[in-house]
Amino acid sequence: MSASVRVTRCVGIASLSGIARSDDPAQLGARIARGDRAALARGLSLIERGDAAGRELASVAWTTPGVGYIVGITGAPGAGKSTLTDRLVREFRRSGDPVAVLAVDPSSPFSGGAILGDSVRMSDHFLDPGVFIRSMASRGALGGLALAVPEAVRLLDAAGFAWIVVETVGVGQVEVDIASAADTTVVVMNPGWGDAVQANKAGLLEVADILVVNKADRPGAADTEADLLGMLSLRSTDSASWRPPVLATSATEGTGIDSLVEAIARHRAWQQLEGHLLTRRRRRIASELQRLISHEVAAAVEAHLRSVGIDRVVDRIETRELSLSSAAAELRPQFQSGPE
Amino acid sequence: MSASVRVTRCVGIASLSGIARSDDPAQLGARIARGDRAALARGLSLIERGDAAGRELASVAWTTPGVGYIVGITGAPGAGKSTLTDRLVREFRRSGDPVAVLAVDPSSPFSGGAILGDSVRMSDHFLDPGVFIRSMASRGALGGLALAVPEAVRLLDAAGFAWIVVETVGVGQVEVDIASAADTTVVVMNPGWGDAVQANKAGLLEVADILVVNKADRPGAADTEADLLGMLSLRSTDSASWRPPVLATSATEGTGIDSLVEAIARHRAWQQLEGHLLTRRRRRIASELQRLISHEVAAAVEAHLRSVGIDRVVDRIETRELSLSSAAAELRPQFQSGPE
Repeated sequence: MSASVRVTRCVGIASLSGIARSDDPAQLGARIARGDRAALARGLSLIERGDAAGRELASVAWTTPGVGYIVGITGAPGAGKSTLTDRLVREFRRSGDPVAVLAVDPSSPFSGGAILGDSVRMSDHFLDPGVFIRSMASRGALGGLALAVPEAVRLLDAAGFAWIVVETVGVGQVEVDIASAADTTVVVMNPGWGDAVQANKAGLLEVADILVVNKADRPGAADTEADLLGMLSLRSTDSASWRPPVLATSATEGTGIDSLVEAIARHRAWQQLEGHLLTRRRRRIASELQRLISHEVAAAVEAHLRSVGIDRVVDRIETRELSLSSAAAELRPQFQSGPE
Repeated sequence: MSASVRVTRCVGIASLSGIARSDDPAQLGARIARGDRAALARGLSLIERGDAAGRELASVAWTTPGVGYIVGITGAPGAGKSTLTDRLVREFRRSGDPVAVLAVDPSSPFSGGAILGDSVRMSDHFLDPGVFIRSMASRGALGGLALAVPEAVRLLDAAGFAWIVVETVGVGQVEVDIASAADTTVVVMNPGWGDAVQANKAGLLEVADILVVNKADRPGAADTEADLLGMLSLRSTDSASWRPPVLATSATEGTGIDSLVEAIARHRAWQQLEGHLLTRRRRRIASELQRLISHEVAAAVEAHLRSVGIDRVVDRIETRELSLSSAAAELRPQFQSGPE
């Protein structure tokens, strides 16, 4: 269970001998905080790799308080999230604030920054040094993106981005979890009854702070808006709760984007006024902490089971000499209660 | 971590004093093994409730070697799995062997035996004491159905059923995991390219021992069969591997059922001849054991975090006094390495 400690020490030794000096979490963190984009890219790769060095870096970076406001964007594939994100980025950039986009695709088997997507999308903002775009794909590892994304966001925050847009592809549980771990969560769908129902079933309406019917120039947009308002009215809310607005946009045409920006600003202001933002961020920290501990414990259990060997009891279970419960009791690691 | 031990003792005391005598695992297990259906129903409820008493019962029942052969049936909702299952049950009953059906619906929020579904379906076999049908819905608990279903199957095995059909609704990861934890896994779909592609994406083709295109009287059935055979041919297999047959059925018309029964028998015989059945069952036991241990450890971690309190460190993380990694290291329970 002392993996992170051990790794820190290894990195320390490496930096003493001058090898891989740039991967020393403290130094990398300092460079990132100074706005060094190469260091940021390297740091994100460490985090994406999912080992303790990346985790350590995310922790170091965390000591640099940032000002980043996190906008989560989710919705079914093909809803036009990428185009909408690009439009949002342009609007955010009007004030001169630096903007980062983290595009997360849990279902993609490719890792290491999803080069193609990055360069295609980057071309839009190629000449703008105030925009940083990065893709993250699933590492397939236990804990995976659910752990890596908040770490990456923390790094972007430490790097001084004022807006951090986290865009997910797909509407699985992982995607919803990732996109809802934001300060403002935007759910994007298209005209058509099916989309609204699917979004509801996928739990998207529950996490939405703002609902966007994109491709609103298509038939049925008004109906979908009405359907969504109807579904939202069924949510039990008191008068003090935030009521998610339903907006119509056409990202390709660029219409409705100003209303979206305005809605995000309104939600942000409402949260700050009411103290909800702090509560929300505290809750996010608590759940990330819980997830991190579970992940570390699960990894320790796995290593433990590998070392003691499960096969030696499977025979005894198969011949009914041993029950599963007894075998589990025999094999599982024992806790010392309480903190170290 | 000694929950099961503690519960056993409680039940022991209860049975001494004559209270809840029927829930004593050993006695209930013995009654189930004698073919007592009321005891079986009670036992399944204990398992569905997901507490240690049910787990203990499943362990006790396990000491009674059964002869049950487990057939898993899965596929998209609406594919006609229930009707197909009913047809299969009728075929299995021709030999006089007792048959049990466990219908699993992970997405249903109702627990306690899904009464309506049971009685509607039971009506078909109402007069046949050789058929036992039971529904299980999600308990929403950690571990949930993935733990409860194999325990329920073990109970049905101990009760002497020759065929245990486990039918799942839906094609999520949980459903696929449950249905593939069988001796023979049947994947059901309908004519249409979409279904085959979806099944492939959902990982269903990988777990299928037998593929069924149900509603084969509809247009496109032959195309779907050809598509499936094409997809299957892409699987890397050696000549010694089982090649999943693709069958066409119409469950409502009752056509193709005999081929399905024959394919199941052929797969069963092939596995027994080659020793694959034993390997498969050993692998199933190993993965269930692993899941049980993970579940118990996760529950212990959760209890530990509740007792030490996470909130007290969240403030310190929020103010950047403490990093997430350090907080995790501080809060997580420590293991003693090795078995007790």
